[in-house]
Amino acid sequence: MDAIVVTRDDPTPRVVDRPRPDPGPGEALVRTLRVGVDGTDHEVIAGGHGGFPDGADSMVLGHEAVGVVEDPNDTDLERGQVVVPTVRRPKDGHTDYFERGEPDMAPPGEYVERGIDGADGFMAEYFTSPADCLVPLPDDLAELGFLVEPISITEKAIELAEASRSTFDWRPESALVLGNGSLGLLTLAMLDDYERTYCLGRRDRPDPTIDVIEELGATYVDSRETPVAEIPGVHEPMDFVYEATGYAKHAFDTVHALAPNGVGALLGVPEAGWEFEVAGSDIHRELVLENKALVGSVNSGVDHFEAAIDTLAGLPDWLTDGVVTGVHGLDDFEAAFRDDETTIKTAVQFDSQ
Amino acid sequence: MDAIVVTRDDPTPRVVDRPRPDPGPGEALVRTLRVGVDGTDHEVIAGGHGGFPDGADSMVLGHEAVGVVEDPNDTDLERGQVVVPTVRRPKDGHTDYFERGEPDMAPPGEYVERGIDGADGFMAEYFTSPADCLVPLPDDLAELGFLVEPISITEKAIELAEASRSTFDWRPESALVLGNGSLGLLTLAMLDDYERTYCLGRRDRPDPTIDVIEELGATYVDSRETPVAEIPGVHEPMDFVYEATGYAKHAFDTVHALAPNGVGALLGVPEAGWEFEVAGSDIHRELVLENKALVGSVNSGVDHFEAAIDTLAGLPDWLTDGVVTGVHGLDDFEAAFRDDETTIKTAVQFDSQ
Repeated sequence: MDAIVVTRDDPTPRVVDRPRPDPGPGEALVRTLRVGVDGTDHEVIAGGHGGFPDGADSMVLGHEAVGVVEDPNDTDLERGQVVVPTVRRPKDGHTDYFERGEPDMAPPGEYVERGIDGADGFMAEYFTSPADCLVPLPDDLAELGFLVEPISITEKAIELAEASRSTFDWRPESALVLGNGSLGLLTLAMLDDYERTYCLGRRDRPDPTIDVIEELGATYVDSRETPVAEIPGVHEPMDFVYEATGYAKHAFDTVHALAPNGVGALLGVPEAGWEFEVAGSDIHRELVLENKALVGSVNSGVDHFEAAIDTLAGLPDWLTDGVVTGVHGLDDFEAAFRDDETTIKTAVQFDSQ
Repeated sequence: MDAIVVTRDDPTPRVVDRPRPDPGPGEALVRTLRVGVDGTDHEVIAGGHGGFPDGADSMVLGHEAVGVVEDPNDTDLERGQVVVPTVRRPKDGHTDYFERGEPDMAPPGEYVERGIDGADGFMAEYFTSPADCLVPLPDDLAELGFLVEPISITEKAIELAEASRSTFDWRPESALVLGNGSLGLLTLAMLDDYERTYCLGRRDRPDPTIDVIEELGATYVDSRETPVAEIPGVHEPMDFVYEATGYAKHAFDTVHALAPNGVGALLGVPEAGWEFEVAGSDIHRELVLENKALVGSVNSGVDHFEAAIDTLAGLPDWLTDGVVTGVHGLDDFEAAFRDDETTIKTAVQFDSQ
């Protein structure tokens, strides 16, 4: 079967022939429909994230997949059922967090991540997966099913952030998304309970992400004009900040951007090793005296995938049409990895339903 | 009546004569028994915290009080009832958070703090207070009632920290308290559900705080030998870190000290304006990839006072005997403000039950 891989000696994604996998006990065989591309894939390609499967010279890319059960094998799934796979799998027999349904809370060393770190991803005509890592999806969402995984990441982050504010009568009104990539835009659309939303980027108009931001009724904040720490003065303090840039200074400036009792969810993953000066005692003071919180969040579990499916079903067509800027077949898969100013979200199409 | 004040031109606490206050509608008159002294009082005296009441040249000190209702006035309290007052009162008509029972969540500008910022404290023979800011205490806890306020601060911080971990099956085993002052030691005693506890200080043996730490079964960590960021390597990563030092670098090093999925509660209030270098991208990465959280926490509400009364009732005598190193009458009140290596927690006694 065709699979899109990177190799240790060549980080350029390319199509190779791989044997079609056989499902083991408790696993189903899935025929891949589409696999999304996101910033993590670009980091994998750049070599700045994760690692190859043990002993392998290549890794199949892709962690945002949707497919159709081709062979349920010994599982309760049904042939033809549309499913979305979760990303983490146990490593070295560490199954505790997986058995609890919380793969996202497993500590480093206890998991691999398909298509990211230590395990083949889903960019192949077929893949196998344990049935409990396959989340059923309504047929009519199949074409957009590759958005379930990124949306699930935000479901988890919002859940964590809201829990951290659950001991008091939190009444958030303003929210700021740091980052106008596809995850930022999807998140902005998910924050429709907020009275006022903002999204930070560093793009000139005309720009398709700014169009989406403004169609969502949000305010575009150009970080070149208004640094994160100055947003409260220029706009307003934010009850909720969602950081999806991976720019480490934003994690600290998030504290300044927050309103009293506000919470910042951090999701970006910067490269290690960058030291810089911060307004250390001011950040500490603000966190304490204004009851602010920061929650880091990575990955997601089956519950978050299920919540994401509901969210996806509720997103307007104009939004997903605007965010998904390209779905490319195998003959044109390189286009899905292009990352220019007209690209927001792309996917590779392996087959149709 | 006698009252202990500081003035704008002289920060040395001294006894002056003040008129006995009359309770207004909804207020009771309380005869003061004891008022504790803590780090915040030392900051107030040093001028580094809060401000004087509007238009006043002096402020009565003290925010950790216990007293007896002398005159219930028009309230439902009973004469002779032992009560502990909460600290915050509304400012400029901002009553929303107070009406919700969440004075601790009111943003800066919407409150004064008795004995700390903008309002007279409780170090006087009598004080008045709205009845809903007076928390009844069992008679047999009256002598230690001045510990309710500091314990309530920790009740709130633990509540916030646990809530931030409530979306998953958190199973904390290790806890670290940064700071071996009285609040740190009381907190350490409250963390008895943890299998292993640690307390950081910078004292040489023999030292009364180290004695308390070890009698509690905790491990003393000397910050001069083991910096906070190195604690996971020397001891173990911590599921919960409680910061009560006000040393801003500790707020950042807390992230390094945490285990995956751990949470740090920040309570110390450093002076503003100190900038320093941090391992910024490592801190950001750790927060995200290991689902770590930081929650700032200040002040406390009536619910936290009530929880603190239960906690106080359960503390062993040897602990409170060890922590309370001095209760001084008005003739010797200066001793309560002494802060040397034999002092842990002191109080000024105004009257007995």
